[in-house]
Amino acid sequence: MNAPRAELLLTGEELVTGKTADSNGLFLARKLAAMGLPCLRITLVGDGGAEITTAAREALLRADVVIVSGGLGPTGDDLTRPALALALNRPLTTPAPLPEHRPGALPEGGEQLHNPQGSAAGFWVVTETQRVLAALPGVPWELETMWPELERRLRAHFPHAVRHALTLRTVGRMERQLDQEVGRVLTGLSGVEWGVTANPLAVDLHLTAVDAGTLQDTARRLRTALGDVVYGEDDTPLAGVVGRLLRERGWMVATAESCTGGAICAALTAVAGASDYVERTVVSYSNAAKVEALGVPQHLVDTHGAVSEAVARAMAEGLLGRSHADITLAVTGIAGPGGGTPDKPVGLVFMAVATADGTFCRGFLHRGDRSRVIARSVTRGLDLLRRALLHGNTGLETHFPPTPPGQHISS
Amino acid sequence: MNAPRAELLLTGEELVTGKTADSNGLFLARKLAAMGLPCLRITLVGDGGAEITTAAREALLRADVVIVSGGLGPTGDDLTRPALALALNRPLTTPAPLPEHRPGALPEGGEQLHNPQGSAAGFWVVTETQRVLAALPGVPWELETMWPELERRLRAHFPHAVRHALTLRTVGRMERQLDQEVGRVLTGLSGVEWGVTANPLAVDLHLTAVDAGTLQDTARRLRTALGDVVYGEDDTPLAGVVGRLLRERGWMVATAESCTGGAICAALTAVAGASDYVERTVVSYSNAAKVEALGVPQHLVDTHGAVSEAVARAMAEGLLGRSHADITLAVTGIAGPGGGTPDKPVGLVFMAVATADGTFCRGFLHRGDRSRVIARSVTRGLDLLRRALLHGNTGLETHFPPTPPGQHISS
Repeated sequence: MNAPRAELLLTGEELVTGKTADSNGLFLARKLAAMGLPCLRITLVGDGGAEITTAAREALLRADVVIVSGGLGPTGDDLTRPALALALNRPLTTPAPLPEHRPGALPEGGEQLHNPQGSAAGFWVVTETQRVLAALPGVPWELETMWPELERRLRAHFPHAVRHALTLRTVGRMERQLDQEVGRVLTGLSGVEWGVTANPLAVDLHLTAVDAGTLQDTARRLRTALGDVVYGEDDTPLAGVVGRLLRERGWMVATAESCTGGAICAALTAVAGASDYVERTVVSYSNAAKVEALGVPQHLVDTHGAVSEAVARAMAEGLLGRSHADITLAVTGIAGPGGGTPDKPVGLVFMAVATADGTFCRGFLHRGDRSRVIARSVTRGLDLLRRALLHGNTGLETHFPPTPPGQHISS
Repeated sequence: MNAPRAELLLTGEELVTGKTADSNGLFLARKLAAMGLPCLRITLVGDGGAEITTAAREALLRADVVIVSGGLGPTGDDLTRPALALALNRPLTTPAPLPEHRPGALPEGGEQLHNPQGSAAGFWVVTETQRVLAALPGVPWELETMWPELERRLRAHFPHAVRHALTLRTVGRMERQLDQEVGRVLTGLSGVEWGVTANPLAVDLHLTAVDAGTLQDTARRLRTALGDVVYGEDDTPLAGVVGRLLRERGWMVATAESCTGGAICAALTAVAGASDYVERTVVSYSNAAKVEALGVPQHLVDTHGAVSEAVARAMAEGLLGRSHADITLAVTGIAGPGGGTPDKPVGLVFMAVATADGTFCRGFLHRGDRSRVIARSVTRGLDLLRRALLHGNTGLETHFPPTPPGQHISS
């Protein structure tokens, strides 16, 4: 038997006019791939009934499962329900509505799918050839809360297609490098498929397997081989890991940010409960702020420039002395596009971590435009905090050996 | 003659497995809609040659223009070029490469499209029936820099389809309210189509017209009717407008942030050149930081609580006195999910703007989860700065009249 294949049909005028970025397709494609029902194709069409019917008919010819999103809303003027009934050559019927749902028509023989976040139920239809057509609303949080029921039904309908999935989240390795390392670890192992998705400095490693035990065993091997490059699993954000480590130690953190403009603190405080471990941040965008609010000696700024190892160290140490934090992170750099010189190019960012044990400091050279330099600095800064909390500043010195004068760690 | 119709074909395994969110489709659909070449359908397929050929053939049967993105990269193992040649029933030829480009095959009769950001050229083919197939790389910044050349060619090929587009960016009106207001202003006017896209607190109003003069005239009418609800046009970010107003006055800004965790400063400093007008930020996440770094009297925190009008005022005024800024913004609130009480629910955020002329302060009640409360607070905070720079604090008092005790401005 061939592995079953899925297709997605996303409807809505806002999708084909570029007014709204689709997120449902991304969510469903990821979930389907993770459970071993890969998508062949994703089709986006407008609100027109004829186009929905045509696209649904075509998809049902190619795929074993077609999931439609959009057009089941409360306005009642949507054309999706009759368009899909027509695609299936079935009449529309209106069953007794589910509790707390408004009545909604569906193709004869179909079953309603409960929508815990909204008033419009979805539906599930199995065709004469055992193909599945499922319709979900277009509102992302409604669709996402309906996924578990749909997944349960899909697993029951395609018992041989079940796979389990797990994502290892890594930071500090380039995509290619990680790819090779994972390839070596998994040589000779069967039953696990893997792939990576990369953001600058952070790479997610997606694993799927039919057997849950094989998946867990593989994840353990990879964690052993990759060590603290793996910072978490599945949906854990890096800032959340830093928060957990701070909480475990009972430590407070403070950041002194220049080129990141508060973005590191914003990432830390995006996590619920951050007030337990975030003490304060000073964004010292002006040199006066570095001197007055962080106690950086004016002569260091004059001698070495605001973007320098000496100033980064003084920022971190100054904030450690002036706050109630147990660990501080300082960042000073040139985000660009202006401000670069041959000695200190755009992308050069000095980062320092200070604790009672001493101060670690390195220069990093980030490629890319202003937004990328800032984004990479945020990831790097969070990872420095994570590694310092795991291994202390000695661990940082080992992980990032000193560079020759004028050289910096590229990323 | 029917209006010409476009379709997009986006190729890449990462798109159908949900590993990467598409941004090319969104970009191209918006650009095509703006120039009067609406998309009928967007299709995402994997990297397989047969699937690309089939999808391209189908699209060429339905649409006058098919734009393909993906698979023209430098690896040379992509199947997109031969797959598209097959879809057109034309042999592949390899023309002399464009300067600074590597050689790339294309369907016979096609022309190369210059790729200023990369080494792989795209191509443009006109079929026997005057339909257009254009192929672009999948890397977003390469594709986006190639758009102007493609747009020029499309405008030349479809001279009757030309439309002009303009987006008015607004802040402070709900989507429905703005929609009604725009409807009233545009009653009886013809030749302009419009639509809105909404983020919380900020709504973009998209206008298109065949006649550039009509478009400009309509935009002027709307600007007159909507007043300072319109903060800019096209791609101007709200933080950029605040920056321009600060620069015009020669003023420096500083922010004192609690629940936004530095996100307002991060938005301001995401704009190039922000060091000209951003002085500093204090994220006073702990009460100690509010007292020590901003000079908030301890008794105000004890009496009114950290989330209160009294503390927001004291934060803004304290920072005005302790920094070199001419205007300060303070934010203190409950982002949730924890920390709410009946008196001070999750979403309650006090914001204060202080200048030498005095201090404005109001309580806002933002709906939504933690990330939404923070996002709405950032937009609201930037808008308060903008309005204060335009009209002074008196303008803020007029725009946001005082609320009865215990009541707050909902959004």
